[in-house]
Parts: sequence; C-alpha cells; structure tokens
Amino acid sequence: MGLVTCDVGISVDGFVAGRNQTLDEPLGVGGEHLHRWMFEEPEQHAAELAAITEAGAFIMGRNMFGPIRGEWDEPWSGWWGDEPPYHAPVFVLTNHARDPLEMDGGTTFFFVTEGIEAAMEQARAAAGESSVSVAGGASTINQYLAAGYIDELRLHIAPIVLGAGERLFEGNAGLDLEPVSSRSTSLVTHVTYRVGVTETG
Amino acid sequence: MGLVTCDVGISVDGFVAGRNQTLDEPLGVGGEHLHRWMFEEPEQHAAELAAITEAGAFIMGRNMFGPIRGEWDEPWSGWWGDEPPYHAPVFVLTNHARDPLEMDGGTTFFFVTEGIEAAMEQARAAAGESSVSVAGGASTINQYLAAGYIDELRLHIAPIVLGAGERLFEGNAGLDLEPVSSRSTSLVTHVTYRVGVTETG
Repeated sequence: MGLVTCDVGISVDGFVAGRNQTLDEPLGVGGEHLHRWMFEEPEQHAAELAAITEAGAFIMGRNMFGPIRGEWDEPWSGWWGDEPPYHAPVFVLTNHARDPLEMDGGTTFFFVTEGIEAAMEQARAAAGESSVSVAGGASTINQYLAAGYIDELRLHIAPIVLGAGERLFEGNAGLDLEPVSSRSTSLVTHVTYRVGVTETG
Repeated sequence: MGLVTCDVGISVDGFVAGRNQTLDEPLGVGGEHLHRWMFEEPEQHAAELAAITEAGAFIMGRNMFGPIRGEWDEPWSGWWGDEPPYHAPVFVLTNHARDPLEMDGGTTFFFVTEGIEAAMEQARAAAGESSVSVAGGASTINQYLAAGYIDELRLHIAPIVLGAGERLFEGNAGLDLEPVSSRSTSLVTHVTYRVGVTETG
C-alpha cells in the first residue's frame, strides 16, 4: 500500500485560502499569491510539482471541487477545464450523490457520500501500490490529519501574510510531526513533514 | 546603522506561545516544546544560536520580561537568573517607570515608557553599528513588523501544533516577505525572511 500524502500551499500565518472565497477568487482575497511559485518558477520547482501529481488517486472536499453548494443543479466539472492535472481518479467528498464524471487525460471524478473513511478506502483501492494524495481544502486535510491517515505532509509556505481565511491544523493540537527536508526560493519555502512517527515529549 | 532583526520560535500553526501563560509555564500550554532544538541539539544549531545573541541591543515586551502586571511592586529581574544570555542592553516596553537594572555579564534592563519608537531609538543608539534584536513576545514583534522596523525575520518553526495562544503576524496582513534561506533538523525548521524589500504582486 502506498503512502498517503498531502501537498498544500500555506501562508506564513497558517492559512491555505484567504477570506471570501468566490467563483472569481476561489482561494479568497490574496489567496492566488499562495501559488506564484508554481506559475512563475516552474523549472525551479520541477521536482515538487512532479511529486504533487504522482499520486495514483486523489481526495478532495466539495468546496475544492467547486463553488456549488447543495444539490448538483449545474453541470459543474471542476476548476481545471477539460483535462484536469490529476490524470487519475479523484474522489470528491459530498453529501449529494452524483454519477462519476470522466474527463480528458485520465481524470475521473467520483462523488463519495459515505464520509472520509469510505473515500480513503476507495482511493486506496484505485491507487494500488501508488500513493493517495489528500488534495484539500483545509477542512478535508484537517479531518484526515486528525483521523491519522496522512503519512507525509508537504507544506509549500508562501512568503505572504493573509491575516484571515481557512486555517490548516485546526482540530489538530498535539499533532506529531517531524521535519524531513526544507528548501527555499524567493517565492516559497518547501517543508516536508513525516506525520505521526515519533513520540511527542 | 545595523539591521533590525527578530528571532522567534513558532509552531507550524503560527503561535509563538501556547494558551494560559503563567509563572510556571511562561510559554503557555505546550509552549516549551517550541525550544527543544535549543536545548537538545545546541551543537547542530550553533550558528543560529550565535546569531540570536549577537545583537548590540535588544527590545522586549513587558510580558516577555516577566509575569508581573501593573506597578513594579516586586523585585522581579527577569526569567534568566543573575546572568541573562543577552550580554547587552535590553529595552523593556512598559507603562510603568522603573530604574535600570544591571545584571551580571553585561546585561542591563532599561524600562521604556514612551512607546516602541522611543525604545527603538534608544536601542539603536546603544547598539551603534551592531544590530538591534526585537526579542518578543508576539505583540511586540507584531507592532514592530507593522511599523516597518524589522529588516530580517528568522522563524524557528517547531514541528508542533499548539492550536491556540499568541499569534505571530496579527495586524500584518499584506506584509512583504522574501525567503532568504531555510534548513531543517528533526526538531526545527529555520527560515530566514527579508522584510519589506520586494513589491508584492
């Protein structure tokens, strides 16, 4: 069975999205600056970018999949156009059942209504020996961290202060982390943590 | 004139002290784990430890100096014994005047009642060509960050989640930071930021 990983962009003050997330600003006020490194320095971060998409299956919360709440009354197919960057099954946590949605390039969105454990089981079955990536947002990551599923947490710390928004680590006081590696460019600091291995003092 | 620097230990969720700071737990619940790297791995962090104390003068808030509030009715002389590790003038922000307090080893505590600008002026005069270090706590650092005084911010990120407490960066949304360097051991990730140099997009 592969690792369960989580890559997430975060501000220095601990937010993975700004306040007021909308259709036009899906990451909230200022949140788009979290990902400048991806778009402005892709060559310098080729290894980190490859690691993000190497998982055999992904899990995300409904709010990361799209801005629609309640029943699926619109033909929303995600933020990523006809060919999303996942190229693998993506399990979307939702309270509202929906048929699987097959996209170009190998991405299929499956809608899971039975909760985070069921989604993890399905993602692991789909991934086989490959890793499963918990893709976001904050609430989904925080739930999987608290439930002990995540083996490796890869923070991509943008040098910005958002001041408000969606906070990583809520509900995870006392979480057991060990830094494995870190490196910086002018737009980001990558820090990889192993989760839940050592005893905290 | 030297740089104004700030070294501060911080949890991955952005707290520089836990909740319920008391005489017995000056860093609040769990806060002592912020500094395990200093005490358990001093050789591995000799450069960072030397950098913390190389300043020619220090500034701290009254709550960092001690747990006493209101008038100075007790002979409190700081947390650090007869020979504090500063070996330089330390300017303590307070609303209550008090005579300077000379300690062993070159540390003298001066009590400044005229606010953060006055304390910075006095610290710069005392430091000469050396740097001035804003030593803490969160409220003091946040005020100096917001006022634009700090040139270099050195975060020492402990792999712990405190969940509550004193938050760094409050009142500093939009702060302009650029990572300069980073490195990790199993107990800490050191990240140095230049403050207020580049234009944010």
